[in-house]
Amino acid sequence: MTEMMSPAAFEAALRAVGAERYHDKHPFHRLLHTGKLNKGQVQAWALNRYVYQAHIPIKDAALIARCPDPALRRAWRSRLADHDGDENRIGGIARWLKLTDALGFERGYVTSMAGILPASLFAAQSYVRFVATRSLLEAVASSLTEMFSPTIIAERVEGMLAGYDFIDQEALAYFKPRLTEAPQDSAFALAYCIENARTPAEQMAVIDALKFKCGVLWSMLDALHFAYVAPGLVPPGAFVPQG
Amino acid sequence: MTEMMSPAAFEAALRAVGAERYHDKHPFHRLLHTGKLNKGQVQAWALNRYVYQAHIPIKDAALIARCPDPALRRAWRSRLADHDGDENRIGGIARWLKLTDALGFERGYVTSMAGILPASLFAAQSYVRFVATRSLLEAVASSLTEMFSPTIIAERVEGMLAGYDFIDQEALAYFKPRLTEAPQDSAFALAYCIENARTPAEQMAVIDALKFKCGVLWSMLDALHFAYVAPGLVPPGAFVPQG
Repeated sequence: MTEMMSPAAFEAALRAVGAERYHDKHPFHRLLHTGKLNKGQVQAWALNRYVYQAHIPIKDAALIARCPDPALRRAWRSRLADHDGDENRIGGIARWLKLTDALGFERGYVTSMAGILPASLFAAQSYVRFVATRSLLEAVASSLTEMFSPTIIAERVEGMLAGYDFIDQEALAYFKPRLTEAPQDSAFALAYCIENARTPAEQMAVIDALKFKCGVLWSMLDALHFAYVAPGLVPPGAFVPQG
Repeated sequence: MTEMMSPAAFEAALRAVGAERYHDKHPFHRLLHTGKLNKGQVQAWALNRYVYQAHIPIKDAALIARCPDPALRRAWRSRLADHDGDENRIGGIARWLKLTDALGFERGYVTSMAGILPASLFAAQSYVRFVATRSLLEAVASSLTEMFSPTIIAERVEGMLAGYDFIDQEALAYFKPRLTEAPQDSAFALAYCIENARTPAEQMAVIDALKFKCGVLWSMLDALHFAYVAPGLVPPGAFVPQG
């Protein structure tokens, strides 16, 4: 990549990363979305995904904390409200706990992260560290997986409602607001990256940041698959489904 | 200090730190508030204080970024809105620029920080680093200087309006909202520190954090006084008043 891509070519290159690497392609998600997991496996997914959710506003605040531009900070701040809530609505983390409630977990167990896979925490922390330490452009770019999330969310909600009798609309309350929040956020981030990647190297850094983030999401499913599907080797201390 | 202080004694100890060390006691502020500075000196103060203002939301986001509690993050988020603005109001940084406007500075010169005293930046960065790296309790405690700010603001607004014909209400737009924001914020932070300092050592850490923060504010006035009052040695590259 030695020449500057046009905005359209750049966006296409980013979408190609998603087509190859976004975690909707992971076998664990295929199983999850087609009703092929048992309750214990769905529990393990919700419990471990909580770790990721809990780190998202921390990641977003880390971005704001390194951003010298009040306008960008202001725009990014809406993500904090989306995940932590405000006067008018509960946030994404509290909505995720409705899912773990529905799956029979005590909230204290979930929020303590006592039963999680260590790999879930490492991936989430690596994401925070990336956002805190790479260039601001790369930090923004690492959020671009949200370009691909509406499709996976629609699939997930439909598939899980159809596939699992222990899941209802209320348990999936997390996802519905994300169908409007994520496209707004990703449109903003994409426009920012298109405008601020001003050299071929910066465009490549944006693409690499998106690949990195796809790796974060993918690795969490690898760990879940390994522990709870095949070979099914739960690490010491991690949640063990009953029965 | 080997015994746990009662909440009242603890609060009194914190107020004693302010009585000794808060920057309302600094000779530069006495000059500023009694109309004894010339326009160039007031310019230098506003220009350098901008550096501090510009770092406040960065400091607050750094606190949010290290905070595992969504409720504390949510409460602290209002400070970001106070300084960066929201849909309904401009924030503290933009209001500070009204003061530098009134004093005849180009906005680009102010926001570039090209003419600041290096000591202003070092103090502001040290504050951000403290909040990012000390315990969360100490990070919260370092905001407690706001317990003392309503008095200094009232003095400052009255004194500057009376003392300087180049200053009007609009130029001091920054301060009025702070008269309600700061007491709310400091009441929250004080209650947090009283509740969360659970050992004598933690109470002492809170007191030390407040002393540290008083040092941040005081050191900026030392640098201003040295450069622009006495002996009046402006460092190379820093703003030089005209005439």
